[in-house]
Amino acid sequence: MGNKSDFNIEEEVVEKLKWLGSFGKDPKGGVSRLLYTDEWTQAQESLAQLFKDAGLTVRTDEVGNLFGRLEGTKVKDETILTGSHVDTVKNGGLYDGQYGIIAGFIAIKYLKEKYGEPLRNIEVVSMAEEEGSRFPYSFWGSNNIVGKAKSKDVSGIKDFEGVPFEEAMHKAGFDYKKDPEKVADDLKAFIELHVEQGNVLEKEQIPIGIVQSIVGQKRFTIEINGQANHAGTTPMGYRKDAMNAACRMIHEINDMALAYGDPLVATVGKMILEPNTVNVVPGKAIFTLDIRHTEKAALEKFADDASEKMRKIAEKIDVDIDIDMWMDADPVPMSEKVVEVIQKQCDENKLNYKLMHSGAGHDSQNFAQVVPTAMIFVPSHDGISHNPAEYTEPEDLAEGVKALIGALYKLGYSVEEI
Amino acid sequence: MGNKSDFNIEEEVVEKLKWLGSFGKDPKGGVSRLLYTDEWTQAQESLAQLFKDAGLTVRTDEVGNLFGRLEGTKVKDETILTGSHVDTVKNGGLYDGQYGIIAGFIAIKYLKEKYGEPLRNIEVVSMAEEEGSRFPYSFWGSNNIVGKAKSKDVSGIKDFEGVPFEEAMHKAGFDYKKDPEKVADDLKAFIELHVEQGNVLEKEQIPIGIVQSIVGQKRFTIEINGQANHAGTTPMGYRKDAMNAACRMIHEINDMALAYGDPLVATVGKMILEPNTVNVVPGKAIFTLDIRHTEKAALEKFADDASEKMRKIAEKIDVDIDIDMWMDADPVPMSEKVVEVIQKQCDENKLNYKLMHSGAGHDSQNFAQVVPTAMIFVPSHDGISHNPAEYTEPEDLAEGVKALIGALYKLGYSVEEI
Repeated sequence: MGNKSDFNIEEEVVEKLKWLGSFGKDPKGGVSRLLYTDEWTQAQESLAQLFKDAGLTVRTDEVGNLFGRLEGTKVKDETILTGSHVDTVKNGGLYDGQYGIIAGFIAIKYLKEKYGEPLRNIEVVSMAEEEGSRFPYSFWGSNNIVGKAKSKDVSGIKDFEGVPFEEAMHKAGFDYKKDPEKVADDLKAFIELHVEQGNVLEKEQIPIGIVQSIVGQKRFTIEINGQANHAGTTPMGYRKDAMNAACRMIHEINDMALAYGDPLVATVGKMILEPNTVNVVPGKAIFTLDIRHTEKAALEKFADDASEKMRKIAEKIDVDIDIDMWMDADPVPMSEKVVEVIQKQCDENKLNYKLMHSGAGHDSQNFAQVVPTAMIFVPSHDGISHNPAEYTEPEDLAEGVKALIGALYKLGYSVEEI
Repeated sequence: MGNKSDFNIEEEVVEKLKWLGSFGKDPKGGVSRLLYTDEWTQAQESLAQLFKDAGLTVRTDEVGNLFGRLEGTKVKDETILTGSHVDTVKNGGLYDGQYGIIAGFIAIKYLKEKYGEPLRNIEVVSMAEEEGSRFPYSFWGSNNIVGKAKSKDVSGIKDFEGVPFEEAMHKAGFDYKKDPEKVADDLKAFIELHVEQGNVLEKEQIPIGIVQSIVGQKRFTIEINGQANHAGTTPMGYRKDAMNAACRMIHEINDMALAYGDPLVATVGKMILEPNTVNVVPGKAIFTLDIRHTEKAALEKFADDASEKMRKIAEKIDVDIDIDMWMDADPVPMSEKVVEVIQKQCDENKLNYKLMHSGAGHDSQNFAQVVPTAMIFVPSHDGISHNPAEYTEPEDLAEGVKALIGALYKLGYSVEEI
C-alpha cells in the first residue's frame, strides 16, 4: 500500500477537516455543532453531497445517521462499516468525531481509486449524535444503529432553551417510525478512527493506537458531614473538619491509584465545601470520584478498597460519610479478530502502533456489543479535547487514515471470516 | 458579694437580652442589626433610655457609640469602662456583642443598688459596630474610641445595596467632625464580657474564661496550577492534578497543626476548583489557610513551615504554587494587672474560671493597645456563633455577670493603681 496514490492523504485530511469544521464554526472559537441544529443539518447535507460526488450510495436513516456505501461486488449482504459522530460539544475542536468521518471517507475514496470495487460493501457513517451536548441524552446515533434506542427515553427531554427533543428532530426533517430492534443483518465489522483525547501516544511518540478495550467506569458522589465551627475558637482536637477528612481520603485514593498504575485511573474532579468561608471549619464536603479500568473485577476491587479506606478515615476523624455510586458501566472489550487485522496490516505496511485501551467512552462501545468492533487512535496534542485547542499533527492524521485503509482493504477486498 | 441583692441576675440578663434582641429580630431567625439601620437606631435609643432610667449619665459620640456612666465621687477623671458592640452579623444570635452591653449595664445597676456611688467612674458602652456586616469595614466603634479610625477609610465604601457609608451615617444622625486622635484621657481600664464562640468552656464544663491574650492571625490564599486533563484518558503518571497536590498539602498542614496543638489552629475553610467537573482532572485549585497563635514568633514559624511543606509538595507533584498572605495581625496580650484583678475576685467569690486565650478578634484588641484591658468569656453551646442557634445557659450568663461585678467593684470602688 503506502503513499502510491496520486492524492496526498495528509493534505486531503487537513483540508476536509477544515471544510467540515466550517459548519458550526463558533465565533467564540472552535466548532459548535449540536444535534438537529441548522449547522448540523448543513454538515450532514454537505457530507451526503461529498459522498455522492465520490460515487458512494447515500442513505439516511430515520433519525439522521448518514451512510455512504461503496457497494461490494461479491458479498452484497456483508458490510464493513467505519465512521464516527458528526456532533460536537459546545466550543469543541476540529477532530473529535469528525476526524473519524473524514478519515473513513478518504479511506474508501482511496481504496476505490486504487483497487476499484470491493468484494464486501465498505461504508462510512456520519452518526447523528454522541456527545449529549444539546439534550441530556448521549449516543443517540449509535444507539439507533445497534437497536438500543428507545423513543420513550427522548420523548420528554428538552435542550437548554426548552426546545423538546422531538420538535428539534422534526424540524431537522427526521422522525422515528418505531424503535429499532437490532443492528442491520449485513453489518460484519465496525472500525472507528478517533483522536485519543489523552496524552499517551504523544508522550510515547507513537502515531497509532489500536484499542483493545474501552474502560468500565464507576462514578460516585461522596458526602462528608462534620461540624462547621469558628476557625479561631475551635481547638484542633475539638474539630470535626469535613475538609480535613476529605483531603485525607483524596490523598489516600491518589496514592492507591498511583501505586496501582495503568490501566486504572481515579479522579476527584469536583469538590464543594460548606460554608466555604476562610474563617469557618468546613461542616460539609461533597466530592466526586471517577474510577476507570479495563477489567470489571479490578474496577470493582479498587472501588471497594477505596470505599473501605474512606469509611475508615471518616471513622477516625469522627465525621459521617455517604458514598453514592450513580454510574456503573462495565468495560467493553474490542473484537480480538478485528484488532488482529488492524495490527497485521500495520506490521505489513510498517506503521508504528501501540496496543492500548480507551479511557473515554465512544460509539464503538455500542457496536462492540453486537458486531466485531475495534478502534484506531491518533495522538492528541497535550491530551487536549472538547476544546478549540484540540490538535493532531497532519502526519499523524495521515498515519491513522493509512491504518484504516489497510484494515478496510483486508476486510473488504477479501472475504475471510471475521 | 454573691447573690445577696434583691434582684435575680439570671432572670434579669435573660430578660434584657431578649428585649435588646427584639430590635432587629429577623423573620428568617435570629437578629439582624446592621450599623446605622433603623433597627440599630432603635436599639441605641432604647438602650440610652434604659441607662437614663437607671440613673446613669448618658452620652453618644460623633459616630454613635453610646455611653452610660455611673459617676465616681472621688476620682472623677478616671473611668473604668465595660461593654461591647451593638451590631450583629446578618441572622446573628442573641449573645454576640449584646451580652457584653447588657451584662455591663446589669453589673453597674447592681453595684449602684448595693454599694452606691463608686470612687472612680464606671461606664458601660454600646459600641456602634464591630462585625463588618454591612460595610467592608470592621471595628468602627472601638476604632473611634481608641483614636484609630480614619474618615478616609470609610468615605468611599458602600453597603451591598450601594448605600454609601457616609449617607447611612448621616441618616442615622451622626457625622464625624474630625478623625479622633487618641483615647480619652480618663480611661483607666476596659473589660469586655463576651460569649466564647468556641467550645472549650463547654467541653471542660467551666462557666468563666479569663482571657490572657487574643491570637494573632495570618490568612493566605494558595493557588495551585497544574493541568486540566481528561479523567479517563490521562494515566495517573502523566497528570499534574492540582486537587491531588492541594489535598496532600491540606492533609500535611492538618497533621502539623494537630501535632502542635493549642494554642495553634490552622484552618482550610475555602476551596475552589477549576473546572470542577467530575470527569476532568482539576487544572487549578485555590484554597485559603487561616493560622492563629497567641505568640508572634510561633505563628511565624508555623506559617513558614507550612509554606515550605506546600512548596515541596508542589515540586513533587510538578504543579505551580502561589502563596499570598493577605492578613497578618499580631497577637494582642491582655493586661496582666486587669487579668489578675478578675482572677483574684473570682477566687474570693468562689467563681470557677479558666485562664485562656481568644481565638477570635474582639474590640478588646483595640483597647489593649492604649489602656489596660481584659476579657471575660462565658460558654457557647456547641461553639456555635454568628447564627440564630447561638446559645449560652442562663446560669453561665449569670456567672459571667458576677465575675464582671466583682472586677468592676475592685476597680471602681477602690483607687488602687492599675
